[in-house]
Amino acid sequence: MSGENLDNKAEAAIGAALSERFGEDVAVDPALRGLDELARIAAHRSHRRYLPRAVEPALLRLLCACALSAPSKSDLQQCDIVIVSDPAIRGAIAATIPDMPWIGTAPAFLVFVANGERLPLLSRLRAKPFPNDHLDAFFNAAVDAAIVLQNFVRAAEAVGLGCCPISAIRDHPGVVDDVLCLPPRAVPVAGLCLGWPAEAGEISPRLSLATTVIENAYPARDLAAEIDAYDRRRALLRPYRRQRNLARWGEAPSYGWSEDKARQYAEPTRGDFGSFVRGKGFCLD
Amino acid sequence: MSGENLDNKAEAAIGAALSERFGEDVAVDPALRGLDELARIAAHRSHRRYLPRAVEPALLRLLCACALSAPSKSDLQQCDIVIVSDPAIRGAIAATIPDMPWIGTAPAFLVFVANGERLPLLSRLRAKPFPNDHLDAFFNAAVDAAIVLQNFVRAAEAVGLGCCPISAIRDHPGVVDDVLCLPPRAVPVAGLCLGWPAEAGEISPRLSLATTVIENAYPARDLAAEIDAYDRRRALLRPYRRQRNLARWGEAPSYGWSEDKARQYAEPTRGDFGSFVRGKGFCLD
Repeated sequence: MSGENLDNKAEAAIGAALSERFGEDVAVDPALRGLDELARIAAHRSHRRYLPRAVEPALLRLLCACALSAPSKSDLQQCDIVIVSDPAIRGAIAATIPDMPWIGTAPAFLVFVANGERLPLLSRLRAKPFPNDHLDAFFNAAVDAAIVLQNFVRAAEAVGLGCCPISAIRDHPGVVDDVLCLPPRAVPVAGLCLGWPAEAGEISPRLSLATTVIENAYPARDLAAEIDAYDRRRALLRPYRRQRNLARWGEAPSYGWSEDKARQYAEPTRGDFGSFVRGKGFCLD
Repeated sequence: MSGENLDNKAEAAIGAALSERFGEDVAVDPALRGLDELARIAAHRSHRRYLPRAVEPALLRLLCACALSAPSKSDLQQCDIVIVSDPAIRGAIAATIPDMPWIGTAPAFLVFVANGERLPLLSRLRAKPFPNDHLDAFFNAAVDAAIVLQNFVRAAEAVGLGCCPISAIRDHPGVVDDVLCLPPRAVPVAGLCLGWPAEAGEISPRLSLATTVIENAYPARDLAAEIDAYDRRRALLRPYRRQRNLARWGEAPSYGWSEDKARQYAEPTRGDFGSFVRGKGFCLD
């Protein structure tokens, strides 16, 4: 197939994916470079079921190196990646999250760590004061880790792997801390399940770009109406397969994103994450 | 050029970029798909100088849609992107960061916002309690924004644009809050300068993969020696052009990454970010 045909195909794929995701047309200039890569980004989907095929250690290492090539706040390099290949360690983490069995069974499992240990160490090594023990220091490390996580996802999807980030490793951060022997001032940001996808997966519909892309300054707006419109668009395209916590809330006649998220966050969750982070040595003032 | 030749070229480019960045060889399987994309990820560089060529609004919109196709914690969709096209608003932000003139002059400037306003609104709209006003709620929104930021960077680099993330918009978050009319529970995570690169740019050398990629559990190790080795490797490849704060610290005979970062963080910075975030309505307990 000629390059031009490939580009036409990518252009159509981008348009179709974004239309499904946002419920509106997004123009794609066919003369752009990199349309094949944009098509992969636009068609992103999470994968939780994988082929019984290993992700080779050399490929994991290559993807880690690519991921760690991401931008880093002030070149501080505060993200580490833990490759969890020991079944006992993986099992201990998976056991804390029983409703996500893919954590135990995915061909590969990683943990992205915000590591704030090195920065004050540099100050000690170079005999300098470190008057920056506050929320921003913690924030920078967490943001660095999230950036590397997403760069990893892009690299993995480029070679055809499928991923599922796991924020639920923060449900029981003390367990993760223990089994990974995390240093002081290092906290898990997310896990990542990884493997060769067993299914095509589904595009997750998103809030309208009118809601999440702002020109210059947030306008006065009717967010409730925007959310209601999204609930309706999403219900047509990708209705929820089951309602959350029927015992507490009963069966809702119309069950959309807003109802699902409101039910999810009606239960207390991760109320101890702040004390865990402080216990690891971060000051959040 | 045939597909195979292109792949050979990409394989060599990945190897060269990662060797320059990490100071070690990383194996690349030539049979992998997506080597052209991995090559762009591996060769990432920041760009602060741009051609006098606009980034068209339609392209910005396409890149925002691609970026917002990223994974989102529990599908909560807590990142917004602000496209700052109004010169007065851009100028007000740029004026707070005078040592980064590219914020005012880049062809395009965006702000990535962690928006925690919608989640408790869902609870109110659906008449549910929201017992989750704590550090993790803030953390999730910040991580979502960082993930979308990096997805944007990947999409931008795919089409040939160059980027420079700007965490310094958190130096004076109150100004950004004011001019962008940020909602309650919404905070800026980073800005992004964007344009068609005027220069090739440079690969930023990074800590050894032995330091930042961990197998299973953090081992006991001599971090000071690892940092010293990185200082030396980096000094050979990319020596600092000037020493920071000579008035306070004088001229160091050997000036590496550790000295530069220790000097940077010897000055108090962003000590008020925590109170800003709390003032926006987040609880960080």
